[in-house]
Amino acid sequence: MKSQVIQLKSRPEGMPTNDNFDQAELTLAAIKSGEFLVKNLWMSVDPYMRGRMIDRKSYIAPFELGKALEGGAIGEVIESLNPDFPVGSKVNSMLGWRSHFITDGTEITRLPDTPLCESHFLGVLGMPGMTAWTGLNRIAELKAGETLFVSAASGAVGSVVTQIGKLMGARVIASVGSDEKVEYLNKLGIDAVINYKTCGDLDAALGEAAPEGLDVYFENVGGEHLSAALNHMKDHGRIAVCGMIAQYNDTAPTPGPSNLAQIIIKKLKIEGFIVFEHWDHYGEFAAQMGQWLTAGKIHAEQTIYEGLSQAPDAFIGLFEGKNRGKMVVKLG
Amino acid sequence: MKSQVIQLKSRPEGMPTNDNFDQAELTLAAIKSGEFLVKNLWMSVDPYMRGRMIDRKSYIAPFELGKALEGGAIGEVIESLNPDFPVGSKVNSMLGWRSHFITDGTEITRLPDTPLCESHFLGVLGMPGMTAWTGLNRIAELKAGETLFVSAASGAVGSVVTQIGKLMGARVIASVGSDEKVEYLNKLGIDAVINYKTCGDLDAALGEAAPEGLDVYFENVGGEHLSAALNHMKDHGRIAVCGMIAQYNDTAPTPGPSNLAQIIIKKLKIEGFIVFEHWDHYGEFAAQMGQWLTAGKIHAEQTIYEGLSQAPDAFIGLFEGKNRGKMVVKLG
Repeated sequence: MKSQVIQLKSRPEGMPTNDNFDQAELTLAAIKSGEFLVKNLWMSVDPYMRGRMIDRKSYIAPFELGKALEGGAIGEVIESLNPDFPVGSKVNSMLGWRSHFITDGTEITRLPDTPLCESHFLGVLGMPGMTAWTGLNRIAELKAGETLFVSAASGAVGSVVTQIGKLMGARVIASVGSDEKVEYLNKLGIDAVINYKTCGDLDAALGEAAPEGLDVYFENVGGEHLSAALNHMKDHGRIAVCGMIAQYNDTAPTPGPSNLAQIIIKKLKIEGFIVFEHWDHYGEFAAQMGQWLTAGKIHAEQTIYEGLSQAPDAFIGLFEGKNRGKMVVKLG
Repeated sequence: MKSQVIQLKSRPEGMPTNDNFDQAELTLAAIKSGEFLVKNLWMSVDPYMRGRMIDRKSYIAPFELGKALEGGAIGEVIESLNPDFPVGSKVNSMLGWRSHFITDGTEITRLPDTPLCESHFLGVLGMPGMTAWTGLNRIAELKAGETLFVSAASGAVGSVVTQIGKLMGARVIASVGSDEKVEYLNKLGIDAVINYKTCGDLDAALGEAAPEGLDVYFENVGGEHLSAALNHMKDHGRIAVCGMIAQYNDTAPTPGPSNLAQIIIKKLKIEGFIVFEHWDHYGEFAAQMGQWLTAGKIHAEQTIYEGLSQAPDAFIGLFEGKNRGKMVVKLG
């Protein structure tokens, strides 16, 4: 059995390009007792993967050059010598960026029986959805009646944050980077949507959208967005720091906001979080999200690229704003 | 009765100068029933007052031009028609920057009978001491065995933070701006003291002083200190943001640290606080601090300027690093 894999050929400097990736064909051995062979159906590309392409200490080990990349994937068992994973099982793994793999089941979970398209286990029911829920519930502790600001609000995480925010009874203000994304969020019933690329002064636009100030900022972007949010936070506001995508491709250090003294003036609480540390709450999240999805209360948007060879383009597209909702690659 | 007062003549741009202040003589009326006359003995100058010299919305109203400044002061009642404040009482007020004032006792507290010099109620037993205690206990929740980094560590707040940190069982690393201050903190038994003006690379010096990383950073300075601390925080480290004195006299926006993504990578919690909001815990603080002072476990350093006319110089001196411990002006 052959497996097609996408490898990290060189570490990107600045924005990643196709030259940083190459495709290879590996030969897989026959499965042994306890093992099974998975054919991947879907793989995830996520902004955090950019961090793993840098050779530095972080909360997760860097990718190795000349080896297959890794990331969330949904596959189907097509050969099995493991009774817990019979042929036909659908499984969730961190072994994306490849067509097939053999495993003994370590760190592999079976998907539940559900009428939902399995790709959503990479999105609204997976890491990005859980990130949105965790940031609002366990970090920022959003309350009904509060005002929430979300940046990168049409992305995999942001689009779920805005919708959960509404379901939790907040007034939700969103920032996105195109008029088409503005329209998408307007359709979802988000209270105010700013196109940061065309609004002129983001700080002024945010002040207009939230004259009463912000209780919570869900930070996905950094830079100018953080600066504007700091200016408009209410006293004792909370900032859940999920990502700073604006900086992930910086080749030189980009200065931070000049208004950090707002942290003192307004007695703000700013907290970074990594969803993996909250995974023991996945069941609670999944029960709630399953209800919302079944009741049609959350719209699970996806942007789909087709074929393993498109995976680098899909990944690069994350930093060009090419996705609406979750960016996934269909392999199967 | 005449009262000498220091007024704000003009709002400083950048570093305050003597030209921003002038002295005036006011005539006080005779005291009426319920009122009493106070002669100030000591007044406080504190970095936060710089913020009140700017005409902007903040947690406390800006000073008005052509009016006496305000701030913590200790005085003695010299005439009284109020039985709660008999002649000879020592009182704590926010009516500094003047020699005398008349009050009906609103927002005035009597000092307890204590053998301590009353000026310490402006320092180690007052707002700066309470700020140190609050930041460590109620914001950063420092624990025994942890590593604490303190900037502006020989100042009114910092010198108490470092000492409380030791008493709480932490390893304490301090940053100061002169070799004489290094020596002072060494004598107090602080574990590692950095002179940020001569150490070359602050980031490297901090890494050397705390190879195991920082659990807590008590932030008084901002800028380069915050940037270095972010680089050396441990996972789940906490930053209590008390002040950013490096920026208080900036005339143009100074960019913030370029490494704010460390907030995510290390899942940091950063919280600004204003001590006045924690004043209901003053009794708890004073009991503990009183014990420490009586037992000789806290050294209460002061820098004393003499005479009301020296108050502007004392205030300006705060930003030139002229104080060791609490900066006070002796009026009596």
